Amino acid sequence: MAERLVRVALPDGRVAYGRRQDETVELLAGAPWTVWGQPTGERVGAGEVRLLAPVQPGKVVAVGLNYRMHAEEMKDRLPDEPVLFLKPASSVIGPGETIRRPAMSAEVHYEAELAVVIGRRARNLARDEVEEAILGYTCGNDVTARDLQRKDGQWTRSKSFDTFCPLGPEVVRGVDPSGRAIRTLVNGEVRQEGNTGDLLFDVAYLVRFVSQVMTLEPGDVILTGTPAGVGPIVAGDVVSVVIEGIGELVNPVE
Amino acid sequence: MAERLVRVALPDGRVAYGRRQDETVELLAGAPWTVWGQPTGERVGAGEVRLLAPVQPGKVVAVGLNYRMHAEEMKDRLPDEPVLFLKPASSVIGPGETIRRPAMSAEVHYEAELAVVIGRRARNLARDEVEEAILGYTCGNDVTARDLQRKDGQWTRSKSFDTFCPLGPEVVRGVDPSGRAIRTLVNGEVRQEGNTGDLLFDVAYLVRFVSQVMTLEPGDVILTGTPAGVGPIVAGDVVSVVIEGIGELVNPVE
Repeated sequence: MAERLVRVALPDGRVAYGRRQDETVELLAGAPWTVWGQPTGERVGAGEVRLLAPVQPGKVVAVGLNYRMHAEEMKDRLPDEPVLFLKPASSVIGPGETIRRPAMSAEVHYEAELAVVIGRRARNLARDEVEEAILGYTCGNDVTARDLQRKDGQWTRSKSFDTFCPLGPEVVRGVDPSGRAIRTLVNGEVRQEGNTGDLLFDVAYLVRFVSQVMTLEPGDVILTGTPAGVGPIVAGDVVSVVIEGIGELVNPVE
Repeated sequence: MAERLVRVALPDGRVAYGRRQDETVELLAGAPWTVWGQPTGERVGAGEVRLLAPVQPGKVVAVGLNYRMHAEEMKDRLPDEPVLFLKPASSVIGPGETIRRPAMSAEVHYEAELAVVIGRRARNLARDEVEEAILGYTCGNDVTARDLQRKDGQWTRSKSFDTFCPLGPEVVRGVDPSGRAIRTLVNGEVRQEGNTGDLLFDVAYLVRFVSQVMTLEPGDVILTGTPAGVGPIVAGDVVSVVIEGIGELVNPVE
């Protein structure tokens, strides 16, 4: 059965990893990929805690143009290998936290993405080692300053602003990430709609490919690309990334 | 007077920050940007320790095309704003450590760069706050798989392989980084030669610009771009980045 991992702020100020079970969070003594990642016996009501980004990644590796129709809407060629870029850890926020549009940009876009969370150190993975290197899956929003992306050519600045990497709410473990509907809603209206079955390079391929470039560490995140339908968000909007069976990640925009 | 900060592996297995004074290293109780960054009173001979990368950055922000003649040799336009990219922390190695050429690439290049080390949390810096946000300067080598850089368009993969970010040997504090000769030597032969006075965007501009995009943390590194003369390194080479008054960073290639 799927396990749902969270990281929470408790009413007394502590921060802890936990397992979500219905309306209860069972606290863990440490990060789920460590020997301390065991239940402490303490349980709190889901309503009493504030959900944080479910991991604090050392790095976020992202993949561009990984859905055919998005590559077409960006007027870009289909890559024959994954196109990688990095988002800094400083851009990560959790569910409910505010996406802040930077002064440098006049055009900030949402990008719904399936996020893969790494569960163990991984370098040059063999095909049959990929599955055990994955902790689980969560929702990601690869927020992008589209005007700066076009201007710079390199994508880094446009995707690296503080608050530009919402992640969460839960890392879902023990599920197959393929064939899942993925959507963006802005103020409740569907703006982006795709299916993870349409990924040009699938999750297993991507994790192995990235591990051939750089050593992955537990908690690191791979964003797998966004489907067609990207568009702007403005102050006052509420943006949701919804992935079937994985979760719904909601963030207000300022 | 300039202070020279190092991070060292001691013969007994401990890792410590220290201050280099002639042939002695005075150990510090913690990272130099923390309240623990004070001398412990313990001194060891410089010959008894192994120098590590002088910091362990959370992120390495790099700047492309920041010397006119390098932009020309790359047949690229001069940017009107700094072009940013990121190198992952997993790519950092220290002085003396081996640069490993990945199987994916047939053309690995050195790129000598002045590296700026951040000394305090920095976000949206004002002009007069830049200097106090800088801990000091060291040598960096922005090792690049040139064939993959051309192929991908995005620079991230080509610059993110493990061992592709040598840093060191010392963080030099309290010096002016401008007007310094910067060179690459391969097997003792000068291959790249420039001067930090020719930076299109200077250190103060870059630190402030990056701080407007993302929050910088102590230990983070900004690589300021490479001068003209980039070229290949092959197995058996020894590559040195030499910056006048900052240091010499030597790495073998495998």
